Amino acid sequence: MTLSSVPENVFTVTREIRFSDSDPAGIVFYAEFFRMFNDLFEDWLVKRLGIDFAYQFETEQRMFPLVHVDVDFREARRMGQKMDMSLILNRLGRSSIHYEIICNDDGLEILHARFVTCVASKKTMQTIEIPTDIRTRMEEYMAACAS
Amino acid sequence: MTLSSVPENVFTVTREIRFSDSDPAGIVFYAEFFRMFNDLFEDWLVKRLGIDFAYQFETEQRMFPLVHVDVDFREARRMGQKMDMSLILNRLGRSSIHYEIICNDDGLEILHARFVTCVASKKTMQTIEIPTDIRTRMEEYMAACAS
Amino acid sequence: MTLSSVPENVFTVTREIRFSDSDPAGIVFYAEFFRMFNDLFEDWLVKRLGIDFAYQFETEQRMFPLVHVDVDFREARRMGQKMDMSLILNRLGRSSIHYEIICNDDGLEILHARFVTCVASKKTMQTIEIPTDIRTRMEEYMAACAS
Amino acid sequence: MTLSSVPENVFTVTREIRFSDSDPAGIVFYAEFFRMFNDLFEDWLVKRLGIDFAYQFETEQRMFPLVHVDVDFREARRMGQKMDMSLILNRLGRSSIHYEIICNDDGLEILHARFVTCVASKKTMQTIEIPTDIRTRMEEYMAACAS
Repeated sequence: MTLSSVPENVFTVTREIRFSDSDPAGIVFYAEFFRMFNDLFEDWLVKRLGIDFAYQFETEQRMFPLVHVDVDFREARRMGQKMDMSLILNRLGRSSIHYEIICNDDGLEILHARFVTCVASKKTMQTIEIPTDIRTRMEEYMAACAS
Repeated sequence: MTLSSVPENVFTVTREIRFSDSDPAGIVFYAEFFRMFNDLFEDWLVKRLGIDFAYQFETEQRMFPLVHVDVDFREARRMGQKMDMSLILNRLGRSSIHYEIICNDDGLEILHARFVTCVASKKTMQTIEIPTDIRTRMEEYMAACAS
Repeated sequence: MTLSSVPENVFTVTREIRFSDSDPAGIVFYAEFFRMFNDLFEDWLVKRLGIDFAYQFETEQRMFPLVHVDVDFREARRMGQKMDMSLILNRLGRSSIHYEIICNDDGLEILHARFVTCVASKKTMQTIEIPTDIRTRMEEYMAACAS
Repeated sequence: MTLSSVPENVFTVTREIRFSDSDPAGIVFYAEFFRMFNDLFEDWLVKRLGIDFAYQFETEQRMFPLVHVDVDFREARRMGQKMDMSLILNRLGRSSIHYEIICNDDGLEILHARFVTCVASKKTMQTIEIPTDIRTRMEEYMAACAS
């Protein structure tokens, strides 16, 4: 996959790499990337789709557990560098949200990750259908990115 | 893949789930699993293969960056529970180490992860051939697990 | 405070320093020490006092928020080293638990930390009196350490 | 200390509280506050004082280890909330930097922390005198905050 495949209107956040992200080699500790992925997913819900994540979790008792992830790490990132993190939504199932995160810095691809997250009930810990209001906003996002 | 596929002599560590591992749903925050994976890989090198990880890193200037990971998360783990984490070595390339981590608790599969880690020089940040002494110990481990 | 002031029967856990604990200088990232403190407090409740932390939290809806901490960091700890972490209980208030954590390695003091934690209701987020069964076990611990 | 004591020109960053910061009670896990403190110190150096932290660390081989910290935690912070984090520089010693971090949200004080950080050589792991260019910028910051 080349960088040109990041669509125009995709939700993108620039993330600076800090001391606290970094391991003894001075590069991002790989577990920290997964924290950044989670933060990006949360930001995407809140800031792009207008879905109140804390409300979903605490009041609606809905959670978004990860079912599958795979990542190709292509380049390390050092403290003091930055990267653009883009979230591409590919497909919605009954309960599942299929998306990719691509990180790059000025033409250099840092990593490429694919996720399947589902919507679940905090009470039953079972998957539930994606609620209509959430599905609608996600479909609008997919359409906006495709156009 | 079923649990029966964890070979007899595989390096296995039992890990208790703590408050500090857990997210607002009371289950392991998924980024924390990746920290546990890294700890298991380090423990395997040090405690099973007898390779001094700190010496490799600080004196030999060798590092073990992750190139690829994919994980299927099957069951959540709550604070107060535990799981067995097993490391299965599948194959060695010139520079690459291909392994799996399977986590289960008493017959319940928690997750199944596949990794490609390589050996690299801290100075050049380029991959290097797996050093002979390390390769020998890893091959012995593969043989011991297959028998 | 000298090392001789760690009483005989104090709850002590030996902690190896790992790659995942370490910062770009190769020493424990200071925020990670606070995670270790929390883990030691949890271990002390569970393994020494026989109090089921997860049950307290999830069923009894009791939590143990930190009110005050101060730490003197005396020596750095590198990946590959270890340290003994000891928890000394000093005093119980109505709701508050006053304790120290001293970390040392073979006569070298790494750090000395003082804590005030209280017992609180998860529902009201207000402090509550230390429950009698917990208080009794903590008083027994104090007595055992003083003898 | 009351909120009115945060001087006008103090470096302040607004920090949203995320899922990844939060513990099973849905509030910031206390070790995460220390990570935020470290990030604020780094941001202060880079964005307010114009000191390149990564360059200091990697090229000048200077590090900023923490010697002492004490914190009073006054209010919990939940996922979805935010807080303003302000860094007040109090005093410079030969090698030591004495500062406070006060976190508040719209008149509510969340916590108040006091730090002593020193400048040290990465090679010798010993404290060194605060370099002149860094001292000058820090003194200017103190003056700007006092005026």
